[in-house]
This record gives sequence, structure tokens and C-alpha cells, in this order.
Amino acid sequence: MAMTDGKRTTLGVGMVGHAFMGRAHSHAWRSVSAFFDLPRVPAMVALAGRSRERAVAAADRLGWRSAETDWRELIRRDDVDIIDICTPGDTHAEIAIAALEAGKHVLCEKPLANTVEEAVAMAEAAERARTDGVRSMVGFSYRRVPALTLARKLVADGRLGTIRHVRAQYLQDWIVDPEFPLVWRLDKDKAGSGALGDIGAHIIDAAQFVTGEQILGVSALMGTFVEERPLADASAGLGAAPAGDRGRGRVTVDDAALFIGRMSGGALASFEATRFANGRRNALRLEINGSAGSLAFDLESMNELYFYDGTEDSETAGFRRILVTEPVHPYAGAWWPTGHLLGYEHTFTHQAKDFLEAIGTETDPSPSFADGLQVQEVLDAVTRSAGRNGTWTAVGDSRAPAEA
Amino acid sequence: MAMTDGKRTTLGVGMVGHAFMGRAHSHAWRSVSAFFDLPRVPAMVALAGRSRERAVAAADRLGWRSAETDWRELIRRDDVDIIDICTPGDTHAEIAIAALEAGKHVLCEKPLANTVEEAVAMAEAAERARTDGVRSMVGFSYRRVPALTLARKLVADGRLGTIRHVRAQYLQDWIVDPEFPLVWRLDKDKAGSGALGDIGAHIIDAAQFVTGEQILGVSALMGTFVEERPLADASAGLGAAPAGDRGRGRVTVDDAALFIGRMSGGALASFEATRFANGRRNALRLEINGSAGSLAFDLESMNELYFYDGTEDSETAGFRRILVTEPVHPYAGAWWPTGHLLGYEHTFTHQAKDFLEAIGTETDPSPSFADGLQVQEVLDAVTRSAGRNGTWTAVGDSRAPAEA
Amino acid sequence: MAMTDGKRTTLGVGMVGHAFMGRAHSHAWRSVSAFFDLPRVPAMVALAGRSRERAVAAADRLGWRSAETDWRELIRRDDVDIIDICTPGDTHAEIAIAALEAGKHVLCEKPLANTVEEAVAMAEAAERARTDGVRSMVGFSYRRVPALTLARKLVADGRLGTIRHVRAQYLQDWIVDPEFPLVWRLDKDKAGSGALGDIGAHIIDAAQFVTGEQILGVSALMGTFVEERPLADASAGLGAAPAGDRGRGRVTVDDAALFIGRMSGGALASFEATRFANGRRNALRLEINGSAGSLAFDLESMNELYFYDGTEDSETAGFRRILVTEPVHPYAGAWWPTGHLLGYEHTFTHQAKDFLEAIGTETDPSPSFADGLQVQEVLDAVTRSAGRNGTWTAVGDSRAPAEA
Amino acid sequence: MAMTDGKRTTLGVGMVGHAFMGRAHSHAWRSVSAFFDLPRVPAMVALAGRSRERAVAAADRLGWRSAETDWRELIRRDDVDIIDICTPGDTHAEIAIAALEAGKHVLCEKPLANTVEEAVAMAEAAERARTDGVRSMVGFSYRRVPALTLARKLVADGRLGTIRHVRAQYLQDWIVDPEFPLVWRLDKDKAGSGALGDIGAHIIDAAQFVTGEQILGVSALMGTFVEERPLADASAGLGAAPAGDRGRGRVTVDDAALFIGRMSGGALASFEATRFANGRRNALRLEINGSAGSLAFDLESMNELYFYDGTEDSETAGFRRILVTEPVHPYAGAWWPTGHLLGYEHTFTHQAKDFLEAIGTETDPSPSFADGLQVQEVLDAVTRSAGRNGTWTAVGDSRAPAEA
Repeated sequence: MAMTDGKRTTLGVGMVGHAFMGRAHSHAWRSVSAFFDLPRVPAMVALAGRSRERAVAAADRLGWRSAETDWRELIRRDDVDIIDICTPGDTHAEIAIAALEAGKHVLCEKPLANTVEEAVAMAEAAERARTDGVRSMVGFSYRRVPALTLARKLVADGRLGTIRHVRAQYLQDWIVDPEFPLVWRLDKDKAGSGALGDIGAHIIDAAQFVTGEQILGVSALMGTFVEERPLADASAGLGAAPAGDRGRGRVTVDDAALFIGRMSGGALASFEATRFANGRRNALRLEINGSAGSLAFDLESMNELYFYDGTEDSETAGFRRILVTEPVHPYAGAWWPTGHLLGYEHTFTHQAKDFLEAIGTETDPSPSFADGLQVQEVLDAVTRSAGRNGTWTAVGDSRAPAEA
Repeated sequence: MAMTDGKRTTLGVGMVGHAFMGRAHSHAWRSVSAFFDLPRVPAMVALAGRSRERAVAAADRLGWRSAETDWRELIRRDDVDIIDICTPGDTHAEIAIAALEAGKHVLCEKPLANTVEEAVAMAEAAERARTDGVRSMVGFSYRRVPALTLARKLVADGRLGTIRHVRAQYLQDWIVDPEFPLVWRLDKDKAGSGALGDIGAHIIDAAQFVTGEQILGVSALMGTFVEERPLADASAGLGAAPAGDRGRGRVTVDDAALFIGRMSGGALASFEATRFANGRRNALRLEINGSAGSLAFDLESMNELYFYDGTEDSETAGFRRILVTEPVHPYAGAWWPTGHLLGYEHTFTHQAKDFLEAIGTETDPSPSFADGLQVQEVLDAVTRSAGRNGTWTAVGDSRAPAEA
Repeated sequence: MAMTDGKRTTLGVGMVGHAFMGRAHSHAWRSVSAFFDLPRVPAMVALAGRSRERAVAAADRLGWRSAETDWRELIRRDDVDIIDICTPGDTHAEIAIAALEAGKHVLCEKPLANTVEEAVAMAEAAERARTDGVRSMVGFSYRRVPALTLARKLVADGRLGTIRHVRAQYLQDWIVDPEFPLVWRLDKDKAGSGALGDIGAHIIDAAQFVTGEQILGVSALMGTFVEERPLADASAGLGAAPAGDRGRGRVTVDDAALFIGRMSGGALASFEATRFANGRRNALRLEINGSAGSLAFDLESMNELYFYDGTEDSETAGFRRILVTEPVHPYAGAWWPTGHLLGYEHTFTHQAKDFLEAIGTETDPSPSFADGLQVQEVLDAVTRSAGRNGTWTAVGDSRAPAEA
Repeated sequence: MAMTDGKRTTLGVGMVGHAFMGRAHSHAWRSVSAFFDLPRVPAMVALAGRSRERAVAAADRLGWRSAETDWRELIRRDDVDIIDICTPGDTHAEIAIAALEAGKHVLCEKPLANTVEEAVAMAEAAERARTDGVRSMVGFSYRRVPALTLARKLVADGRLGTIRHVRAQYLQDWIVDPEFPLVWRLDKDKAGSGALGDIGAHIIDAAQFVTGEQILGVSALMGTFVEERPLADASAGLGAAPAGDRGRGRVTVDDAALFIGRMSGGALASFEATRFANGRRNALRLEINGSAGSLAFDLESMNELYFYDGTEDSETAGFRRILVTEPVHPYAGAWWPTGHLLGYEHTFTHQAKDFLEAIGTETDPSPSFADGLQVQEVLDAVTRSAGRNGTWTAVGDSRAPAEA
């Protein structure tokens, strides 16, 4: 087992899934040790995928030494210390729990699970494994956008004072066209939910992470604008082509989810996740107003953080565009000279770095499975409130109707 | 009476109130005929204010020929054809109804009234007067920001297709400081509500105007962050200084109001009005996503409209910054060469122009008192939903609990 | 004479010309006393224009009490204290000198003159009149954009340290179409020069005003892209329509002028004025970098000033967007609440206010005719350098070839 | 020799230098085959550096199989097909010529050389080798920013019409502090020139690449603001710390270079390269105005291209923000879903991809050494003009004074 083998200088990684997320994670494992000083460096041992042919091709292309067709084989291998789960949400619980029980560290893509029940089981498994030094982490990678990590720091440093407002949106537009096919992300059985779990989960986590507060309760509204779509290849992803003549099927998830709520520190918050914001390709926006200052962020300009310091003289006060590429900024010093931008994929590189460091230093990485469960509970409260005419629904109590 | 006197080339205006709004309206009446060709030009006949000394000084400064201390005197004067109401909301109904019954055209600042009941009475008075050719209009002046008028035109021309999302915010920050005094806008008796009626009314009207759709129902959340403030001079306005040692009083209105809802065309909408968005001085933002395109606007950059044309080839598609100063743009041709900006106050100049034209051409100006009443009903639904744990509340039924 | 008549509370204004600039100045004279407390308020006594019919119509529309067809009549009138010159540059010298000699205060549109010789005569006349208490000022109105006035203040306060770079551009696009007609601004006899004198003069003045430094010398390049255009009505302005079939004439001015130079404090500077920057309607941009900070401005967003404070910690340093509408900002306190924008025309209102204050307090207004002459000398150096293959040409020595 | 060995599926790379550029190139070689389908994939065979200890550590960290202490050893190795030169400019000529003569393909960082003479020799060597199928390319990596590649395409497609203006700036601020030490980039012997060759070379290449035109001649101005600085470790780079007490030395390069010029198609152009633009970390800005449209770009927002289509109706015309992450955009389809940003380093990945493709398909990569020589000639004309009082200096004639 990895933790007890002091002489090894590498940590073997086994990755399950090799689609969009698998490509991004592979790039992170391949790059991380060239930029960061790590206690133990990753070895890209094996990748698992259901089709042997495709798994072998992906392993070859993405830099993995070998391929398996069953994730259980990854868990059995001695040279694998870390299981990295990059599959759709319906498979997370089974894989993660098995891996943890086998003593493998687990990095699991978000959302942690498709249901609160699964997430509870996973968090419990993580807590048991933790007592044996087995680490687990859920992949809310946007915490590792340097601008958002800096945002968290500024809030923690008190630069915003008491938080009054959170305004979070995740706007995409990839299914505006009603002829876009019925990919797995539009299938409730696979994906759990639509915009809500896919991108809404990101803004829930980001808002809670940056403010250091939790969402207490919500009033919600969800909708599906296009209820039937052409059938697609089951494995089709975001860039899928129109589907030809396979007939049509029912969209079983939400196209958009909106909710308003209260944060644990008293702030009023509004959230919106949609795949129908024409022209907004990937606009995760977060704006936070506090008694002493404000912050604004947009993932479409992910190297920038806007900060308003309310303590400045009004003659020169204004939102500052901080280009988050300075040596003093989170993660940025490891990369290029100031002013040279980082791309999307390095949120995963930073995630890999932090996970490897946590393993190497025997500390708990963050966000934990318990954090992932808490996000799942917010998602659940949103779904329940939307089903109850928007009535206020407390987070964390999935059985009884909640009071404000 | 004005309408029957074919020989007059002017229309006498009497204005009630001479604070912030009075100054802005005066500037409009003084400027409008220098820029627009009007069937009948305004004469700034008289201004009314409670203090003689201050009313006389204001009349002199703002260009009014005379001053009265009772608005009833304005209504009695034969040389006054138009009553322009610029006082706090609690006085609107009495003045407007009296003026309409006296056969005076009425321009009334928003919100139309402080309650649905008052607004109903006003709309009924307006409808009665209308049959005698007496015109009335409510001052949602932002409809006359050229960029928002253009936005309306683009939606009406079908450039956005089916509206999917409305995202409206009115963010200010003038009471972030807990020592800012208890001015009349923080007093429910005078102002009716806080951020909701003052600036929330603007985004409700703007969203409905631009989309051409109505808000059907809402789930709402309201809050007051600072519950006690130093007492102030009753007439103090937005720029009031800290109040010295007069003791403290209770804030009886909302500091912020958030709500989500559905539009009559099926769009999902979110609204937020707050005076606690530190660093956002006057950010009325409206973003609309449709099946064919999108629009975005921010009053802090009020000469700009952002338009995304979803029918463009993806190679060059993107949000365009339209500088709304072209001769083909609404109102803009009357002003300066292309690229020369207009300021806040000309929303009132455009409003005066449209009202004078409606009177001159004997047509109904817009927005009508009925439109003002409908906004009042949305405000009322928001308040009721916020009082009922955010439960969905239909607009326009202020007696019975509504269903989704 | 105005200055000796202590009992008068008004100052009579006579304006020459009533086209674009005349409209803008009229709006300023009409508005200024409603917003600013002035020692003496303007009376709009008379306007002069060559055509009686058009002058009378303009006076009526723009709020002038009477009209004259000869500017000499304005000068003769006892009720006129101020002559406001809004005609093309070829007439400035004659009118201004006659007015000054008659003891009238003179506000003259920029550029001061079409040649250095005329400007010298005007500056000398202004200096002679000044000893009798007669005031004169040249209309570089952009000094009164609050954001640029604030920029000057920040530099004067030392917030930028030693100036290293000035980057000034005035980009317009109104003659991109080769069929746009040959209006007077494209005729060297009337306009003196093209983009250089019209808009280049503005950035020269703005750069010198904000930095408090002068341009010492230049290397220049000028060009005319479209050499022949359809003939137009002689009085046609910026918004002229294509000309129909009157034949074609020669463009005798520059379409664009570029120059680089040194400022008196050691900064390196670059300037560009063009009417061929497609899509840039009115982009007067000024960027200044100093050892301690930087500033950036664009007239297309004229209420905003971007300020970089180089003394901030690099964690939160960044260009701040200052919305220049605060009570502490230049001129802004007289207008609307914070966050409410001002338009283009109020640069003229501020200019009128400052000129009236200077007259009322018997102080010298700024920019003086001597300042206007100095700008003319820069224009002259640019023209000469462009005619000498870009060779370095010192400002202020219009006879001999200059050395670096 | 690589080209004749049809069975090899890899191309061995040997890299000289392992500082900032070496790290960037290594990341590219390591990543390129995971994202692009290549005819032959790179093998990271060996890295050369003068210190064995540091070379071995760098090879290990950056993913190279072995390390050499003499670049001549790299050239001698049979398993090396490509020599990648990442050293300061004074060494380029010797290494590149030796490598080409040994039949190795050469990728050489920009600027090609420190003098025109060296660049001529290199271009001649490249031309000789080319006849034997040996490929060479100079590393103007910004041609591979997808937004700039798209800009080139739009110009080539005629979307801008006739180019009227080029406005190019490269603004950095890393030596604003006069106590920043005297690193090699401030030493003329090593670096050839200062801002001019380092970053001015980039905007010269970018402007010529995007427009498809060449700079014909220039008027220039150069300056050094801080003439002495603390001595530093010879290998210190951009992020060097203040130097402690080693004494002071003379800065022998330019801090800033400005020039104006004419393009071969008739456009007027202005260029500025500086390391003293406080607050501008890495602002390579390019703006191009044509008779039919305009483009604007800023490397600090490198995933965005602003495009103005002058053929649009003026009602909706405006600069569009194109987020250059669409499948149809250059290089972008190989990466992430639309709206997910790319970072700085992938300009090098794209460069590696294009170079590998050119080798694999036996075609000439671009930019060639001849292109690099032409940029060197522009740099030379700038330097000579600045030395001759800004007098117009033609590009490409480095012996005789040139005429306009």
C-alpha cells in the first residue's frame, strides 16, 4: 500500500474513463511534476475503458503505460495507488467505494454522485478509509482556478467584510439548437440531472468555497425548454454532431435551474445554471458583495479577478482587474512570467498537485467527499423546492419539508 | 383645456416636487424643443413645493416662471396643461387623480403608487380621463435609454427568437455604510418599499418592455441587512451626509429583494434589486437569451448594447458592442454626431418628447397608468411571496394565494 | 464693459455660428446655471449666422433671444459681454481679434486658428486685452470631461510618478466610405488641415493638459487614402448624405496623421489621429504610464477612468475602473447621484461654467489663447516633419529646420 | 537522416537551453501528440545545457531522456532529428548553421539573430539545407495564438478590405523598478537589443503576418529611462530578485522603441515596444482597420478576437468579442469544448504541431528563416532611423541611407 512504502518516489495512478474528463486529467498527470515540486510524483500506470480497442488507443495517445477493460482490474493492481474516476455520475459510488475499501486513494469527478443516498455511502466509505490514511477528494476543479483561489483568500483575509450578496451563474449554450442530439448528459439515468448537477454543482461549490459559508435553504425553479431530441450514440459528448435518422427521444433532465437562497452568514444569494444562454459558451460567473468590498469573476476570462476595495477613497475607488498571474498568486508562480495566461486544463494540474501533496504529506485534501455530499444535498433541496412550487426548502433535510 | 385650443403652440407644464427628480425633469422640459421637432412645445409655467422660499429658489434656478406652495394651485391654473408629478410615492394617487379629473395631462414618476389599491384607483382615473382626450403616462424613463429602446426593437423584429431567459439586476450601494442616515426612501410610509419599489420596479418594467412579455408569477426573498440607522432630515436624499446626533430609527423597508419567475412566453427569469452591492453605483443590468440571439445591457455603460446574433457563422459569432449613437438608433439622431455619448438625464428628455408628441398627435403615450398598475401587481406578488416562504405567487391576484 | 458693471447679475452672450458646435454651446449656456452656482449667470442674447432665415430659426430653437446676420453686429451690441466663436477655423482670427479689441470676453472653438501666424496674432490680442480685464479661452472642451480632469489631478498629485509614456489616439470612421461627400472639413482653405487639426489637436491638448508637460519635438507621417470625393453642399457637416451628381472634387487635407515625440519631462509619446478607423466612432484614447502608476481613458466610455496604482501590493494590483460620477470628482457633484452618467455635451457646460467663473472672479481662464497657439505650433511641427521624411522637428520653431 | 527513414514513427528532438523558453518548448513536445494527430510524433531525446548538474535536473523535470553539456553533442547524435534552439540570441547563428549543415531540422527561437549579418548567414544556410529536405522555422509563436491565426484568416478572406491602419503595441512593465537587476536581456552583447528585439520583434511579425503585408520603411525613436542597474547573476531572467550588493552596471539596450511606418499595401502603421508600461504585464495589442472592417487583439485576453464587420447594418454594427474556442477556429478543435480557454504555452504546442507536420509532409514550415531575416531588417531600420533623428529609413537596405 502506498502510504507505508517510504522508499517509493512515485505514486501509480489508474484512471477510469477516457472521454473529455479523462483527457483533461491525463494532461494534468503528465504535466504536474514538470512545474511543481512534489513529495511524490505520479506514474501514469493504467487507464480503464470498456472497449479494449478504444482504451488501448487512448492510453497510447494520452500517455498511459497500459489499458484495462474493467476498472476492477485497476483496483487489483499493486502498482496503482490512486484511482481517478472520470466516468458519468451513475458509476461513481460503486467504483469509489470499492477503491477506498481496497486502500486506494480516490479522486472522483463531480458531482460526487447522482443521489444523496449514493453520496452518503461514499462519504461514509471515505471517512472509514481515512482512518487508514487513505485520501479522497472530489473534483471541483474550479477551486484551483488561480483567480478563484485568490478570491477565497481575499474573503478569508477579511477584504470583503460581511458578505451581503452572492450572485452565481453558469451559462452555456451548447443545446440551444433543438436538433442537438440526446447525449448521455441529457439522460437522467446516466447524469442524475441536467444543467443543475453538471454546471449548477460547480457554482454551488464555488460560491460556498469562496465565501466560506454554506447555503442554508433555497427557493427554486427548473425547466426543460426542448422536451424531445434526436437520438444519439450513447457515448456522444458536448461536441456531438446532429444525429441523423435514429428517431427521437425524451429529454429527462432540466435545461435550466434557478434558485435563490440564504447563506449561513446572512447573505442573500441567487444561482442560475443553464445550457440555453445563447452566446455564453462557458460563463461561470460569480459576484460577491460584502460590507467592505466586492469580487467578480467570469470563467470566460478566467485569468482575471475583479476586486472592489470599499475602503479606498472614493476619488479612486473602482473595480480592479487583477490579472492573476503574479508570483504571489496561487499556483501562478510555478508557471510563466507575469502576464502570461493559463488555460482551462491547469485547474486539473493544480488539483493533481494538491492531491499528490496531501497524500505525500499525509493530510486531508479538500474538497472532501463530505463536501461533495453537502453539494449533493443542495442539489437535492433545489430539486425538491422546484417540485413544491418554489417553497423554501432547507438544505440537508431530505425527508421532511423544511421551514425558513 | 389644452386639447381643444388649436391655436396654442405651447403646452404649459406644472411640476410638483423639485428634488432629484424635479431637477431631472426640469432639464428635460428646458432642453427638449432644442433637439426635437415637436407639434407643441412645453412652457415651464410653474413649480410647486411646500416651502415657499425653497420653491421660489428652485423655480429660479431650474427655469420655471413661477412657484406655488400647493400643488392644487397648479391644477387650478389655466396656463397649466400638464401636471408632472415628481414627489414621493405616497402622494402620487391624490395628485394624479385630482389632475386627471381637472382635465390635465399627467406624467407621474414611478412607481405609480405605493400600493396596488392606489394604483388601481389611478389607472381607473386615467382610463376615465382618456375618453376626454386627457393623456397620462408613468415615468419609467429607462424605456427611453436609446440602448433599451433598441433592445425592444431587436426583440420585436425577431432577432432573439423565442425568449428563454431574462436576467435582471439593479445594483446600487449607497447605503452600504450602516451610518448612512434614515432618509425618506428607507421609510415604508413614504416610499412604500425599499430597493424593491425604487429600483426593482425599474427592472420589472425594463424586462417586460424589452421582451414584450409579462411576469406571470414569482418566488421571492427579501431582506434588510441594517435594521437601525441614524435619524435624518426628512427631506434628505441619496447624497445625504451622516446625520449627527439625532438618535436612531428603524428601517422599515427592504434593503434587497430577489425573485425568480416565469414570463408569459415561457422564459425563466431572475431579478435582484439591492442597495448593498458594494462598488456597483447604478448597475441596472439586463440580459436576455433567446433561441436566435441574446442581448446584454448595463446602465453604468448606458450608451452600449451588447447583441449576440445566433444566426452568424460560429467563426465570427460573438457579442457585439453596439454604441447606440447612430442616426438610425432611437432618439440618437436628434443629438450629436455618431460616437458622442448621451447622459442619464436625456432619458427624461426623450420621455418629455414622447409625451408631448402623444398629446400633440392625440395618441396614447406608453407606459400607461395601467402598465404602472401591472408593475405594482408584480411588486405586490414579490412582497407576498417573500412573506410566504418563497412560495410561488401569481401576479395580478392580490387576494387569494396563487397556484403555479 | 462687463467687468466694471458691478450691479449686473448676468453676462450677455453672443454666439457666432450655429451648426454642430453652436448647438452644443447653446445647450451649455442654457443649462449651466441650473446646475452650478455662478457669480454671474449667462443671458443668451443673440446668435449670428449668415442666412437670416436660418439664423432666426436657430435662435428660436436653441433659445437665443435674437439673431444677427453679421458677427460684427454682435460685437457692437452693449448687451453682449461674451463672444462665443463656433465657426470654421479660417474665421477665428478676425472675429476673435475684433471682439477682444472691443472689450468682449472671447471663447473660441479649437483649433485656435488655421495657421501659426493667425494664432500668434490672436494670442497677442488676447494678451493685450487681458491687461484690461478682458478674458479669453480656447475651447478644448475635453479638458472638462470629468474623467480627464480627474486624470490631470492624479498626475498633479504625483500618483503616476515620472511620466514614461504617452499613448494618444483619436480614432473616427465617418469618411471610410469613399462616396462620403467633400464637406468643408475636407477642404484645406476652410479647415486648415484634416484629421490633424480637427481631432489631432484634441489629443495634443489632452496629453499636454493631463501630463502637465509639453511636446518638444516630433517625427510625423500623414496620409490621404481617398483623394477625390463627390462634391457637397458647402455647409454640410459630419452627418452629410451622399451628394448626388454634382461631380467630384479633390480632398486637400490629411485623412490621418501619426507622430511620435518626446515630452518635456522625458516621456516618449505616440499620437495618431484618423478618420479611417472603421468601427471606432469617436475613440479619443489616452494612456499614460508613469514610474508610480498608469492611467487609461477612452471617450467612447467617457465616464470611466482606468487607474493603475503601482504602489499597491501585487496581490491585488490592477487597473481600476473609476466611474467618475462621485461627489468628490470634478464637476460631478453638481449633477446626479453617483453612478448616473454624463453625456458629451456637458464638457461644454463645464467649459461655460469655468469661463463664467473666471470672468466673475477676474481670473485667467484656461486654456488660454497662448495655450491654443502652442497646440498650433505642435500641429505645425507635425506638418513640417511629415513633409521632411519624418525627420525630427522641434515644436515652436517654425522657420528653421530643427534638431533633436 | 530523418527524412529518408520511412519506418521511424518518431522524430527525435534535441533542445538547447532550458530556461523560460526551454520549459515552454518542453511542455509543447510533451503535450502535442496527445491532442493532435501527427504523421510522426516527437521523442524528447536530449537536452543540452552548460552545467551538467542543472542540465540533468532540467531533463529529469521536463521529461527529456538524457542531458548533454555541449550542443555539438546533440548535433552529433543519430537519434536526434530536430534541433530546438532556446538560448539567447547571440548563440543562434552558430548553433543553427551547424545543425542545418548536419542535416538536422531546426526550430530557432526569435529573434532569429542579433544582427542582420548573422540572420543573412542563417537564412542562406536554411536555403541550402532546404534543397536536401531539411526544414527550418523561426519561433514567432504568437502566429499560433488561435485568435491571431483567425485574424490572419479573416484578412485573407477579405473581411477587412484594404488595410488602412495598423496599430501594434507590446507593453510590459517588468523593469519599471530601477532596482530591478541587470539581467542578460538588458545586455546588448547577449540580447542584441532591448524591448525592440525581444518584444518589438513579436509585433513586427504579428502585424506583417496578420495583414499579409510588409513594413516598407519607418521613422523611429528609442530610449533608455534607467541607465544603470544593480548587477545580477548572469543567468537571471524575468523574475529575478533585486540583486543585493554586487555594484551597478550600465544598461546597454533600449527600454522602449516607438516607430511609425508604411505597409506595402498603403496602410499607415504605428508600433511601440516597452518594458515601462506600468500595469501592463504582457499586453501585445494589435488593431487593424480596413475599408471593410477592423480587428483588435490583446494578448492579456488571448482567447478573444474583436472583429468589426463594416458591412453590417449600422443598427447592429459593433465590435464583436469572438471567443476563439470553437471547433471551426484554428487549433481549437483539438482541445476542449467550446468556451474553455487555452493558455500561453499552447502557442508552442501549436508551433510544434505545425513544424512536425511540415517535416512529416515534406513541406516548408512558416515562418521561415527568410521571414526571420526580414523581421531583423525591420529591427535594423528602426535602430538606424532612431540614430538618424527619426528620418525615414527603408527596410531592407542596411548600407545606404534610404529615401521615402
